Amino acid sequence: MTLRVLIAPSGFKESLAADEVADCIATGVLRTIPDAKIRKAPLVDGGEGFTKALVAATGGSLHSVRVTGPVGQLIESHYGFLGGTDVKTAVLEMAAAAGLRLVPRDARDPLKTTTYGVGELIKAALDAGAEQILVGCGDSGTNDGGAGMAQALGIRLLDAAGNELERGGGELIKLHTIDMSQRDSRLEQVKIDVACNWHNLLCGEKGVARVFGPQKGASPETVEQLAAALDRYADVIEQELGIDVREMPGSGASGGLGTGLYAFLGATLHPRYDIVMQYLELDSLLQESDLVITAEGSIDFQTPRGKIPVEVAQRAKRYYLPVIAIAGTIGKDARVNFDYGIDSFSTILKEPCSLPEAIANTPELLTYAAERVMRLVKVGQKLAQSVR
Amino acid sequence: MTLRVLIAPSGFKESLAADEVADCIATGVLRTIPDAKIRKAPLVDGGEGFTKALVAATGGSLHSVRVTGPVGQLIESHYGFLGGTDVKTAVLEMAAAAGLRLVPRDARDPLKTTTYGVGELIKAALDAGAEQILVGCGDSGTNDGGAGMAQALGIRLLDAAGNELERGGGELIKLHTIDMSQRDSRLEQVKIDVACNWHNLLCGEKGVARVFGPQKGASPETVEQLAAALDRYADVIEQELGIDVREMPGSGASGGLGTGLYAFLGATLHPRYDIVMQYLELDSLLQESDLVITAEGSIDFQTPRGKIPVEVAQRAKRYYLPVIAIAGTIGKDARVNFDYGIDSFSTILKEPCSLPEAIANTPELLTYAAERVMRLVKVGQKLAQSVR
Repeated sequence: MTLRVLIAPSGFKESLAADEVADCIATGVLRTIPDAKIRKAPLVDGGEGFTKALVAATGGSLHSVRVTGPVGQLIESHYGFLGGTDVKTAVLEMAAAAGLRLVPRDARDPLKTTTYGVGELIKAALDAGAEQILVGCGDSGTNDGGAGMAQALGIRLLDAAGNELERGGGELIKLHTIDMSQRDSRLEQVKIDVACNWHNLLCGEKGVARVFGPQKGASPETVEQLAAALDRYADVIEQELGIDVREMPGSGASGGLGTGLYAFLGATLHPRYDIVMQYLELDSLLQESDLVITAEGSIDFQTPRGKIPVEVAQRAKRYYLPVIAIAGTIGKDARVNFDYGIDSFSTILKEPCSLPEAIANTPELLTYAAERVMRLVKVGQKLAQSVR
Repeated sequence: MTLRVLIAPSGFKESLAADEVADCIATGVLRTIPDAKIRKAPLVDGGEGFTKALVAATGGSLHSVRVTGPVGQLIESHYGFLGGTDVKTAVLEMAAAAGLRLVPRDARDPLKTTTYGVGELIKAALDAGAEQILVGCGDSGTNDGGAGMAQALGIRLLDAAGNELERGGGELIKLHTIDMSQRDSRLEQVKIDVACNWHNLLCGEKGVARVFGPQKGASPETVEQLAAALDRYADVIEQELGIDVREMPGSGASGGLGTGLYAFLGATLHPRYDIVMQYLELDSLLQESDLVITAEGSIDFQTPRGKIPVEVAQRAKRYYLPVIAIAGTIGKDARVNFDYGIDSFSTILKEPCSLPEAIANTPELLTYAAERVMRLVKVGQKLAQSVR
């Protein structure tokens, strides 16, 4: 029988995107088992590359569009449509309009950066006829709670004097009233799903300002300013819309964009891999596979805490499928993964080397590792036939 | 069915002896397959550790004996008897009586160092009732053609004036006559097998003086002196005993000890792994196994040129057994080994590290690697049962 192999890897940080990882593994598998039937489901979180990965995996289309960047500059951004869906489904990532990479180092002031461009991306998708929209969160350079995104779609955020707030998270301290009357009416007909980190919260000690503010350029004082502004934001949202978003799972995703998408657009927030795997139809792929190969840059004791290899393995085990993980590094206490559905794992390394050397040679090393891993699997297949 | 695994590794240079390697692999295999039936055949070349490894593998006995060292000092040496044999079989290694490690750095003069102690080891084995003797060559510190060994057993090497030669390879330039009349008479009843490097020759451009003299401390002039002395030695052996040893395979083994063992003791010279595997009864072990795991510090394009993993794999393939190699380093063009009976190989590494780090952690890394390798094999076994 032809062996059906599902390749469902993460990207390797600083080295290869998930689809490139999948290609390398496929090449290696085919070297050992030329007639294997291979399906690829490169997995991404909601951050950079989310749109392209989903478009590529579903055979969809990618579209360029100019939007407002996080510091107000005009930037070339993109969104896509998934392929093979009945409902016309757009996909976009916040990082393509408000990502940290789009904020020049000397302009990293999260009091000011805005998600306005994310609203414009959503608007572009609506203009193109989207009936359903999938939004990826991650790698953000903003901390405005999605206020800019909301403003771009007609939601008016007003101060005590009735004036619209300027852009940036710092402005939210002045928020007094929310006017939804001019919201883009097409939003009523559209289902919006958000892939986000479920653990990111808007307010409190573990709120997004305190946890992520510093890496976006916030000083300790700025962090406190931002936290106060987001508290105010949550207060007004509760008062005006009757929703308590303060510690709602995902409310702090991408500098609070999760809150804006939920409160103003009626979006549903999902743990990022759940929704990615759903859109990639991972379950049906699993049902048509005999073996699953996943991968990540590192596999260790943290992998069971929501990292892709275990997320994949847990789903694969519903169908009793064997799962192999290939990793750049096998880290501390990686053995714990054997308890989470990963049957074995292997490193890509072949000889003592430094991390930069391993990173530089990842494509070749990964391909070779997949070849050798499948050769070991093949030994087991032969043994099962000879040892009775 | 219980899986029967034969573990037949080399030692890891500068790190672990072959029996320690076998122990680590066994531990790893049992972690994955607790009811596996494991047999170990740690493999050695004829050099340091040869005696202890064969004694340990056969459940034999080890015996201490004082002999003359390579620079004339009295040293504590040892020989052994193999276990489980009908014929009382002694085993000894030349390195334990005349090894390079026994020659102090400031006394490294191959014109002078002697194999006299090797003859004494053979004598001790005869005294203890040996009916058969296995001699390991390798790691020598001498270049005397086995002349000292011969003299210790009563063979008289005489100069033109009829005086016995002093010890050391340099003396052989004076050799004129060989007197076998006082040779230890017990040698007639005893079969002697020698495990040696088949590629080492006594004379010629690739003769032992030129190839190995320098690493034993010989200057360029000394090399030429030694080469001339060994040529003279070969001439007289031919004239007196009618044997041409000059370019006989193994004649140059251990500074020409192969020649002495062959010409004066009637020993049979064997490619080292052939004889080791024969004494370890590797063939019957293979016939009782389902899977073979071998190992070496490095696996690369040179492995098929007489290194242990391929020597083992070639024999395993006579019985159609799958062979897995575990290596510290997967080196240049290692893939060539797939054509020589090795089905797959795996590195012991788990993360980027330096060679010294890998060496320092070899036992733990090796055990873990064996565990993971067997987990991949197990995936294959399961697949064979589910994919029909």
